[in-house]
Amino acid sequence: MKPCPTERPEPQSKERLRLWLKLLTLTTAIETDLRRKLREEHDTTLPRFDVMAALARHPEGLKMSALSGYLKVSNGNVTGIVDRLTAEGLALRVAVPGDRRAQIARLTGQGQAAFAALAAEHEAWIDRRLGALSPADVQALGALLDRARAGGGSDEPD
Amino acid sequence: MKPCPTERPEPQSKERLRLWLKLLTLTTAIETDLRRKLREEHDTTLPRFDVMAALARHPEGLKMSALSGYLKVSNGNVTGIVDRLTAEGLALRVAVPGDRRAQIARLTGQGQAAFAALAAEHEAWIDRRLGALSPADVQALGALLDRARAGGGSDEPD
Repeated sequence: MKPCPTERPEPQSKERLRLWLKLLTLTTAIETDLRRKLREEHDTTLPRFDVMAALARHPEGLKMSALSGYLKVSNGNVTGIVDRLTAEGLALRVAVPGDRRAQIARLTGQGQAAFAALAAEHEAWIDRRLGALSPADVQALGALLDRARAGGGSDEPD
Repeated sequence: MKPCPTERPEPQSKERLRLWLKLLTLTTAIETDLRRKLREEHDTTLPRFDVMAALARHPEGLKMSALSGYLKVSNGNVTGIVDRLTAEGLALRVAVPGDRRAQIARLTGQGQAAFAALAAEHEAWIDRRLGALSPADVQALGALLDRARAGGGSDEPD
């Protein structure tokens, strides 16, 4: 399955299509393993992990609307997740001064500690999962992904 | 979000974590655009596209169970999709000789033509979407993704 550019030139669009399938396959495999790990070992979900991560990055709290914006990836039910975190003492909601309809969610100290432990394990797991990549590979791959992303805004109709 | 420094707070794990977030962000952005494009411009869905792609690669047909195995990524309702494709004259189901309970699904000629048109557009769209990558970038990125994937089988418990 190795492409051989000198002898059998393939259209570049085929190469890019193959690349997209590789991207999708790798990302899906890691995400699937991650969801399973969170479920089996921590009795939690990826959307819940992502909500806690967003709140952990904003110790001052986040409006519910802003929180939803951070979660395009896992796309969970933000309100329900914050409700459960609050019921478990890991988060709380406070009113926004001057805006009776808005609420800010933030982690409690207990929530911060719980997330820190989970995040450390997540980081160590990803480190192992991508362990076949050398530091130089990681740099090179990151730069290429940045480049791919930079070109991606244009979704012009045909 | 500082991980508690138990024993492995190396910077390399942070780099790999950052890399994972880049992978996830890029893949999710492309997949989201692709789903929207299929819906808005072709009135179809990614799982349906994937079912047709799997059937197109197997002109002799696929058992329903095998078909499900090809669709881990988009994870749609394979039976419902094949039912609709069949109702539209794009696919058909035939019994497996010697196995009364098994069925093989395959595309009709009309289904093959419909998928070929869709696949060509999909390829052209991905080609534009990843157009910021040079041919050398595409080769390099593909090789790095292969390497990352090769190391990924081990999901040993901690």
